[in-house]
Amino acid sequence: MNKIAIQKAAKRIRPYILETPLLYSPFLSKATSAKVYLKLESEQVTGSFKIRGAFNKLLSLTSNEKRHGIITASTGNHGAAVAYGMQKLNIKGTIYLPNNASAPKVEAIKYYGPDIEFYGDESVDTEIRAREVAEKKNKVFISPYNDPEIIAGQGTVGLEIANSLPNIDAVFVPVGGGGLIAGIASYMKQGNHHVRIFGCEPAASAVMAASIRAGKVLQMKTYPTLSNATAGGMESDAITFGVCKRLVDGYYTLTENEIGKAVFIAITKLHKVFEGAGALPVAALFKNRKKFQNKTVVLVVSGSNLATGDLKRIVCSA
Amino acid sequence: MNKIAIQKAAKRIRPYILETPLLYSPFLSKATSAKVYLKLESEQVTGSFKIRGAFNKLLSLTSNEKRHGIITASTGNHGAAVAYGMQKLNIKGTIYLPNNASAPKVEAIKYYGPDIEFYGDESVDTEIRAREVAEKKNKVFISPYNDPEIIAGQGTVGLEIANSLPNIDAVFVPVGGGGLIAGIASYMKQGNHHVRIFGCEPAASAVMAASIRAGKVLQMKTYPTLSNATAGGMESDAITFGVCKRLVDGYYTLTENEIGKAVFIAITKLHKVFEGAGALPVAALFKNRKKFQNKTVVLVVSGSNLATGDLKRIVCSA
Repeated sequence: MNKIAIQKAAKRIRPYILETPLLYSPFLSKATSAKVYLKLESEQVTGSFKIRGAFNKLLSLTSNEKRHGIITASTGNHGAAVAYGMQKLNIKGTIYLPNNASAPKVEAIKYYGPDIEFYGDESVDTEIRAREVAEKKNKVFISPYNDPEIIAGQGTVGLEIANSLPNIDAVFVPVGGGGLIAGIASYMKQGNHHVRIFGCEPAASAVMAASIRAGKVLQMKTYPTLSNATAGGMESDAITFGVCKRLVDGYYTLTENEIGKAVFIAITKLHKVFEGAGALPVAALFKNRKKFQNKTVVLVVSGSNLATGDLKRIVCSA
Repeated sequence: MNKIAIQKAAKRIRPYILETPLLYSPFLSKATSAKVYLKLESEQVTGSFKIRGAFNKLLSLTSNEKRHGIITASTGNHGAAVAYGMQKLNIKGTIYLPNNASAPKVEAIKYYGPDIEFYGDESVDTEIRAREVAEKKNKVFISPYNDPEIIAGQGTVGLEIANSLPNIDAVFVPVGGGGLIAGIASYMKQGNHHVRIFGCEPAASAVMAASIRAGKVLQMKTYPTLSNATAGGMESDAITFGVCKRLVDGYYTLTENEIGKAVFIAITKLHKVFEGAGALPVAALFKNRKKFQNKTVVLVVSGSNLATGDLKRIVCSA
């Protein structure tokens, strides 16, 4: 992934996305003794960065591919982002959801009016089915992370950060499949040997860090987590793995308690709603603040789609 | 108050404030059948619009006045805004607080390093004391709303709205002392006979609406409210009263339950933190949505400084 692909993506998706704020946080700076900036993808259209990759992918389709329509599988931010993009660009397609997808998540996707199919009881079965149907019907399957156009789209977060702030020492990025961090690292590390990029994962589903340690993509059991937007496994041929191996400087894993505390701090001190995944970088910086004293640190807040049940658990037990 | 004073204020304060987003809300639009835009002063520096008036006032002081230093009295958003302005502009001054001011509010003001004096057990006594000291020591007392420079500063919210969106039918604005609505109405009504401006108050402290009905500023008992940023009485010579009488088209009063529900909707559906006062316009539109079907409506979200106790009460009882 080179800078030019990301610059091209930025130009292509500009009419459809927000250039989100890169906000200096006096509270976090004081609390951690670093100079802390928040990249607020929590304020992005559809409430997460996923729309960047989704638009870049949809806008890269040939007219033939657009005519055939696309297929994807996701109950979460990727599904909502693709559905929104399809609506705006008038592209047909189907989103596959597991039978047990929660009502609010289904609503968030239905909102944008795509065709929806329910299949299987586990996300992994749903995705396998969606890929099969795509292949059989000769439609494009849109992966949430394992696609160069998706990664280039997510990389525009890095481009915006680099264009807004000089002399950054470290960037903390939530990691699930690795699309966001692969894009950001690809942009920010090229020609900049100073900046360090750190991945942040919930301990309940820290597949990338474990895979990097093992030298190959692991198929691991993962557990439910507040950071549901980064939960789940990676495909064994994930192109994000190689990028992360080359460019990411380290990983932090966070307990559920640490993630919940970071969400609570965001609401009560920053007066902002971060979803669990979006709060991972805040939790990681608090936990490792001694290492980053006086450094200029950017925390990428990936999204704001905090489920009401999680909100209640966090606020009412604090 | 004419447009030119507000344009002058906008130019003067521009280096210090954010031009906040005017965000279309798909959720609120669908829920109310209006075209709903949110003016997010909740994302303003210090978490409220108050910084606009504070900077405009501080920047209008003569060098002699600056040398003498200023005095104000406020436990809330005005106090934090003036303290922040003093720090940025290197102006000395003292903020008077009542002895029983809550610890988080005192902290929020101390954060910016002003001199602080505690006096009296009620805000009204604290303010009387602060005014006496200001007069005796020949210092400028900065009122939170009863001052043309403050009103012109708040009016820049109206200027930004008018510059961003054409054909607005109605603007809903939280009202306490009336500085914000007086400024917005002064700007938006001049040369625009179409737009209607509505004030939103908590039923527990609806002093402006009652005063307008009575034809004079009333001294009324008020009650504690989630919308603490708009609570309390008005001075009998408040210049905001005459402006509101001429330019405001109507008032909506909201119960505590309605305000709490609007805060809960903001967190769980918009994924944003609004303080009680900031949620008043959301509550008012929901309550009166039949009147505004298909209209283009701007809701001014005045601030985000929701107290943790209020957050817990709202979220954990919902």
